[in-house]
Amino acid sequence: MMGKVYIVGAGPGDPELITVKGLKILQKADVVVYDRLVSKELLNNCKDGAELVYVGKELGQASLQEEINKLLVNKAKEGKIVVRLKGGDPYVFGRGEEECKYVIENGLECEVVPGISSATGVPIYAGIPVTTRWASSGFTVITGTRADDKLIDEDYIPKKGTIVILMGLHIISELKQILLKKRGPEEPVAIIENGTLPSQRVVTGRLKDIDLLVKENDIKSPAVIVVGEVVKYRDILWKYA
Amino acid sequence: MMGKVYIVGAGPGDPELITVKGLKILQKADVVVYDRLVSKELLNNCKDGAELVYVGKELGQASLQEEINKLLVNKAKEGKIVVRLKGGDPYVFGRGEEECKYVIENGLECEVVPGISSATGVPIYAGIPVTTRWASSGFTVITGTRADDKLIDEDYIPKKGTIVILMGLHIISELKQILLKKRGPEEPVAIIENGTLPSQRVVTGRLKDIDLLVKENDIKSPAVIVVGEVVKYRDILWKYA
Repeated sequence: MMGKVYIVGAGPGDPELITVKGLKILQKADVVVYDRLVSKELLNNCKDGAELVYVGKELGQASLQEEINKLLVNKAKEGKIVVRLKGGDPYVFGRGEEECKYVIENGLECEVVPGISSATGVPIYAGIPVTTRWASSGFTVITGTRADDKLIDEDYIPKKGTIVILMGLHIISELKQILLKKRGPEEPVAIIENGTLPSQRVVTGRLKDIDLLVKENDIKSPAVIVVGEVVKYRDILWKYA
Repeated sequence: MMGKVYIVGAGPGDPELITVKGLKILQKADVVVYDRLVSKELLNNCKDGAELVYVGKELGQASLQEEINKLLVNKAKEGKIVVRLKGGDPYVFGRGEEECKYVIENGLECEVVPGISSATGVPIYAGIPVTTRWASSGFTVITGTRADDKLIDEDYIPKKGTIVILMGLHIISELKQILLKKRGPEEPVAIIENGTLPSQRVVTGRLKDIDLLVKENDIKSPAVIVVGEVVKYRDILWKYA
């Protein structure tokens, strides 16, 4: 009998931010293929004898993606329940769609379970709402890391609304120049390192200084950047964080 | 002793899409204040004797928001653990930030637990990734329902990337005109009714026909609208849905 592949979002870091559905599937997995940003505590939920395969990858390792695809299919063809556990949400810059496509095209069942994206979950733990009734009627999520190694195009950035940037630290100077084409230099920004984890750090400032903020505070990946008036809400809402 | 208020995202509909953290808090709640879009199955997890307060509201009932705020504070002042359970994510067009602010300003503790937003979770169940490495390096989430009853401003909409619209059905003709200022008439669109639930329905077409699609298929709220090339992925990825 054929197995099945589940592509499951683990959420932004706090191991309790996985969904109930995701946890139940993880508990019955025969094989778990997991990323660098997945909480080790989450893996403690796997059943005895489950095979855990670490595939944390560095930027741009295209060949590794092919290997992961094949691993998922081969294990499922052995009749196993295979969980591909990914940080955040599988379909928000997660390549889950490529893995799902590959599995389906190889004649196997694939189910995708949403996860809390870092784009929405991380700002909450920093006291920042991505929307508010009065200050922002929308938000845009972009990544600093594109498939073709090109920079994000300014056409992805609207004039108004909150901007959330994932995986943008390594090109922060270039991002600043692109953002300044659409937003003013005094626009508030927040940079959140290790969001939702006990080690979370938040720094705030102005768009004109965003590259300095990263450098002077020695911010490391993973970090989420928020640009917009909503950052000011942190002054009120941080207390629970 | 003072109680505490938790503002918890219930996710987009499927009761198993609540987070593990959110479920644990719900299980210990003395009072649960819940919305129209929250799954009744989720409420079965409440402890015996928990007080369940339904506050499902119609659009624009501003006075109700004040009543909810006061209810949360008054119950917590009685020493109770109060859970404000909201559909989707509390900070994605959820007014969670207003409730959190009110609770904190009244001297009480408030903790916000992220939920899977309909903006990302619903497209997954319809086989649509909001981003892909090759077709979309970003996505924008907007609402058709603004605080001031104004239409969404076209400045919230970028030229490129996926657009996800929540609560937009009632102004679909006006939305179409605004979207057409930024996108071509042939841009693919999907409309997902009752996303993630067994009653989920998906219709697809072109931006130029979006209002007709809603009318001819008699689409009812809640519905999520997706605009962009990513809609085409559904042809491959729908199989697991």
